[in-house]
Amino acid sequence: QSSVTLFGIVDTNISHVNHANGAGDSLTGVGINGNATSRIGFRGVEDLGGGLKAGFWLEAGHNPDAGDGASGGAPAGSGLMFKRRSTVSLMGGFGEVRLGRDLVPSYTKVSSYDVFGQVGFGSFQGWKNWEGATTTDSDGYRQNNMLAYYTPNFGGFSAGLGYGFDEQVSGKNGRYMGGFAAFDNGPLSVTLALDRRDIAFPVVGVPFTGKKDMVTLGGAYDLSVVKLNAIVQQSRYKADGLSGSDKFNAYSFGVTAPVGAGQVRVQYALYDQKAISSKAHQLSLGYVHNLSKRTAVYGTLAHMRNKDASNLGLGGGGIGNGAPGMGENQTGLSLGVRHSF
Amino acid sequence: QSSVTLFGIVDTNISHVNHANGAGDSLTGVGINGNATSRIGFRGVEDLGGGLKAGFWLEAGHNPDAGDGASGGAPAGSGLMFKRRSTVSLMGGFGEVRLGRDLVPSYTKVSSYDVFGQVGFGSFQGWKNWEGATTTDSDGYRQNNMLAYYTPNFGGFSAGLGYGFDEQVSGKNGRYMGGFAAFDNGPLSVTLALDRRDIAFPVVGVPFTGKKDMVTLGGAYDLSVVKLNAIVQQSRYKADGLSGSDKFNAYSFGVTAPVGAGQVRVQYALYDQKAISSKAHQLSLGYVHNLSKRTAVYGTLAHMRNKDASNLGLGGGGIGNGAPGMGENQTGLSLGVRHSF
Amino acid sequence: QSSVTLFGIVDTNISHVNHANGAGDSLTGVGINGNATSRIGFRGVEDLGGGLKAGFWLEAGHNPDAGDGASGGAPAGSGLMFKRRSTVSLMGGFGEVRLGRDLVPSYTKVSSYDVFGQVGFGSFQGWKNWEGATTTDSDGYRQNNMLAYYTPNFGGFSAGLGYGFDEQVSGKNGRYMGGFAAFDNGPLSVTLALDRRDIAFPVVGVPFTGKKDMVTLGGAYDLSVVKLNAIVQQSRYKADGLSGSDKFNAYSFGVTAPVGAGQVRVQYALYDQKAISSKAHQLSLGYVHNLSKRTAVYGTLAHMRNKDASNLGLGGGGIGNGAPGMGENQTGLSLGVRHSF
Repeated sequence: QSSVTLFGIVDTNISHVNHANGAGDSLTGVGINGNATSRIGFRGVEDLGGGLKAGFWLEAGHNPDAGDGASGGAPAGSGLMFKRRSTVSLMGGFGEVRLGRDLVPSYTKVSSYDVFGQVGFGSFQGWKNWEGATTTDSDGYRQNNMLAYYTPNFGGFSAGLGYGFDEQVSGKNGRYMGGFAAFDNGPLSVTLALDRRDIAFPVVGVPFTGKKDMVTLGGAYDLSVVKLNAIVQQSRYKADGLSGSDKFNAYSFGVTAPVGAGQVRVQYALYDQKAISSKAHQLSLGYVHNLSKRTAVYGTLAHMRNKDASNLGLGGGGIGNGAPGMGENQTGLSLGVRHSF
Repeated sequence: QSSVTLFGIVDTNISHVNHANGAGDSLTGVGINGNATSRIGFRGVEDLGGGLKAGFWLEAGHNPDAGDGASGGAPAGSGLMFKRRSTVSLMGGFGEVRLGRDLVPSYTKVSSYDVFGQVGFGSFQGWKNWEGATTTDSDGYRQNNMLAYYTPNFGGFSAGLGYGFDEQVSGKNGRYMGGFAAFDNGPLSVTLALDRRDIAFPVVGVPFTGKKDMVTLGGAYDLSVVKLNAIVQQSRYKADGLSGSDKFNAYSFGVTAPVGAGQVRVQYALYDQKAISSKAHQLSLGYVHNLSKRTAVYGTLAHMRNKDASNLGLGGGGIGNGAPGMGENQTGLSLGVRHSF
Repeated sequence: QSSVTLFGIVDTNISHVNHANGAGDSLTGVGINGNATSRIGFRGVEDLGGGLKAGFWLEAGHNPDAGDGASGGAPAGSGLMFKRRSTVSLMGGFGEVRLGRDLVPSYTKVSSYDVFGQVGFGSFQGWKNWEGATTTDSDGYRQNNMLAYYTPNFGGFSAGLGYGFDEQVSGKNGRYMGGFAAFDNGPLSVTLALDRRDIAFPVVGVPFTGKKDMVTLGGAYDLSVVKLNAIVQQSRYKADGLSGSDKFNAYSFGVTAPVGAGQVRVQYALYDQKAISSKAHQLSLGYVHNLSKRTAVYGTLAHMRNKDASNLGLGGGGIGNGAPGMGENQTGLSLGVRHSF
C-alpha cells in the first residue's frame, strides 16, 4: 500500500563483558543493538493540500536474540509494542504538532552528539536513571501522553517543546516538561535542552515524590577529516519537602573520522556523581564498516573505570550486563552486524 | 506483496473529563480513539476460481498514547495481539463462512446505528458489561473460537449467525450463540439482533453461573439533510437456579447531518437499569471535519446524568476515566485527530 | 517497500478430541494449526555485491482462535513476538552465518520426515519435553542467542551447526550444541542430527541440573506414486552427579501419496519410553486438498494408544487438549482451512 512505509532494523552481535554484575562474573553471548536498536515500524505522510500534511509513526523495538519485544520502555517479557514511537502529526509552514508516545524533545537532538548513537557498550550514560526514580509514563527517553511542537528550520535555528500529561488523579508523577533550541550552520551544530520530570524516588530508603531536572548542552564541529562532538550535562534530583538536591554531572567528548567505507569512533566520558562524591571514566572505541547503505559490520570496545562508590555499568548489550561492584571496572567488546530494511 | 493489504488507524486527542472516578476527581491528558479505534491490520482475499474465494483478516488494536496493545479485549500491559479480528473465510455465492476470533454477528451491524460509532465519550453504552459478568472467551463485543456464517444480500435482506465454542471441560462459561437479520433498502435500514452468552457473575456477592441474553433492534432513515438513527435494547442476566432475572434496557436516538466537508452528530441515550431501579441519561454532541478521505479532526462533548444508584461513566477516552459516584454526573470533552492508512 | 516480504499463514479448524485430560473429558471447538502453524513475518535479502548477501527474518506465531501471540515459545497470554525466528544472516559462497533466535539446526531438516509437518493431531511427538526439563532459552525446537552456520549444498551434501549461548553467570542452563548432516539425491533424502542441551530437571522430585542428548536419523524415498518417510530417534536425559540416564526412543514411518490436487498422509509412530518401561502407539491419517497454491482444506484423524504408565497426548490442536490418564488413549479429529499469504 503506497500510504505506508514498512521499515526496521535487525542488529545482532557476539559480545563479551567482564564484571557484568556485583559478583564480578563475566558474560559471553549473542548481544544485540550494538550499532542501532532493533526495531520494526510503519509510518506515512499524507499531503492534505494547502501546505498541510498529516503523518503517523508506529515503531516497536524487538530483541532478535530472544525474539521478544521488551524494548523502548516495554517491560521484560513483552510482546511487540509501539513503545518507541506512536504518534499522529499535523505538519505545515507552522512546523509540526505531534500527539502520542515519543522520544522527548529534550533528548532527541541533543543526544545525537553521542558518537555511539546511544546504543551499545560505547554509549554515553548521562541519561540513565541515577537515583532509581520511577515515573508512571516515562523511561527518561520517551514519554506517554505527550503533546509536542517542533518549529520549522529558520535559517539554521530550530526548537521543540513537549508536555507529557501525568493523567494522575492525585499528584503529578509522570509529568514531563521540556524542550530544546538548536543552531545548525555548515560545520557547526549546537543544542541546548532542558527538562523537568515529576518523579517518585527513595531518599535514604524512604519513598519521596520530587523532581528531576536536566540541563544538556551539546555541540559538534565537522572538520571533514574528523568531526568533534561534546556533551555537558547536569541531572538534579530534588525531593519535595527536603532542602538540597542530588547532582550528577556528565561530560562526553567524541571524535568520528571517515575511513573509506567505514567510520572510526572514539569517545571519552566523565560521570561526576556529586551526590555520592564519586567519579567514573569511560573510554570507547568503535569501527563501523558499511557493506552497503543498509548493512554494516561493526566492532565496539569500551571500558568503564569506577572510582570510590561509583558502580556504573556500560550500556546494555543484550547479554544481561548490569552494574559491577563499587569501584570495580567493566569492559565490553562486541562484534556484530546491523541490517536495515 | 500484492496478496496483503496493510491498513490501520491512529487516533489521538486532548481530553478532559470530570467526575472521572468515585472520588470525583478530574482528568486531563492525551486521549485516544475519539473518532475511531486505533489499529493495525493485515488482510487479503484470494480468488480460488469457480466463484469461490478465500480471505484472511488479522487486526490488532493499539494505544498510541502509551504505545501498548491493550485493546480489542487484550488485557492491560499487552503487546500487539490480533484480538480485534483474527479469521479465515471461505466466500462464494452461498455467503461467507468465517472461523476464528471476531466481533459477534449480533453486534456488528446493529451497533452501526450508534452515531458515535461505539467510540469515545459520545458512544452508546448499551453493550457494556452491566453486572460484572465474566466469560472465558468474550468481552461482549468479540468472541474467541467462533464459527460464523453470513448470508449474501438477497434484495436488501441479509443475516448472520455465530456460535462461539466454550472449549470448557465442565460447564459452558464463554459460550456464545447469536445472530442478526437486516433489511436495507434506499434510505431505510433495520436490524434485529439476538444473542445468548453463558457467563459467570456474582449475585448478592455469591458467584453464580448463568446466562446473559440480549435483544437489540436498530434502524436508520436517511433524509439526506439529516439521517435519523435509533437503538432499542434489552440485556437480561439470569443466574442458574435462581428465579427472576436482572434487566437493563437501553435506548438511543441519534441524528447526523453533513455540513460541508464535515458531519454534525447529536445523540440522546437513556439507560433504564431496571435491576437497580435507576436511570441515566446521556447527551452527546460531535463534529468531525474531514481534511481528506484519510484524515479528520474532531471534537466530542458528552454528558452522562446519573439518577439514584446509577453510576455510569462515559465511553473510555484513553485518559483513565471510570465510573463516577452513584448519582454523580460525568462530562467529557475531546479534541483530536484521526488518521487512517 | 521492495526490500521487505510480508508473509504469513492463518490456519483454523473445527476440532474434537476425547480423553483430553486426565479426567477423561472431551473437548470440541475451534482449533488452529492443523496443517501449518499460523504466523506473520517480515523477511528480506540484500545483495551486497561480490557474491555476498545480507538477510533478515522476523517471524511471529499467532493463534487465530483467540488472537493472541502465545506461539513459537512465547508464554501464555503473550502478544506478538518474533519467537519463531529473529535473525540476521550473512550469506555467500561459504554458506550462511546466522545470528539470533531460530529453530535449531538439529531440528529443521530432520523434522521434515514427519509427514504431518510437526503440526496438529497427526504430528510426530518425538521432540516433546519428556521429563519436564526446563532451560532458560529453549523450547526444544528453538534457541535464543544462537550462532549458526549452514554449508552450501555440495553435490547433495549439506550440513548445519549451531551453538546457543547460555548467557548464565553460573551454570550452563540453556546452552545448546548441535548440528546435522544431510544427503539429498534424486528420490533419496537422508539426515542425521545430533544435539546436546544443558537443562534443569527433576529426578525423583529433586531438582537437578543435567544434560539432554538427542540423536535423530531420518530419511525419505520418493517412489512418485507414494513417498516413504521414516524417523528413528533417541532422547537421553542425564542428571549431573547421578549414574545412569533416562532414555526415550521414538520411531515414525509415514507415507504420502498425491491424489489429484490433494495429498493423502498416513503415519505410524511408536514411543518406546524406556525410562518408564511404557510404550505408546500413534496412528495418523490425513488428507490435504489444495484449492490453490495458497489455500487448502484438510482433515486429520489421529489416535494415540497408551500402554502401562504412558500418558502421551496428541499434538496441540488449539482446543486445549493435554495428556490423558495413564494407559488411556486419545483420539482427535480436525477439519479445517489453511490460508497462506
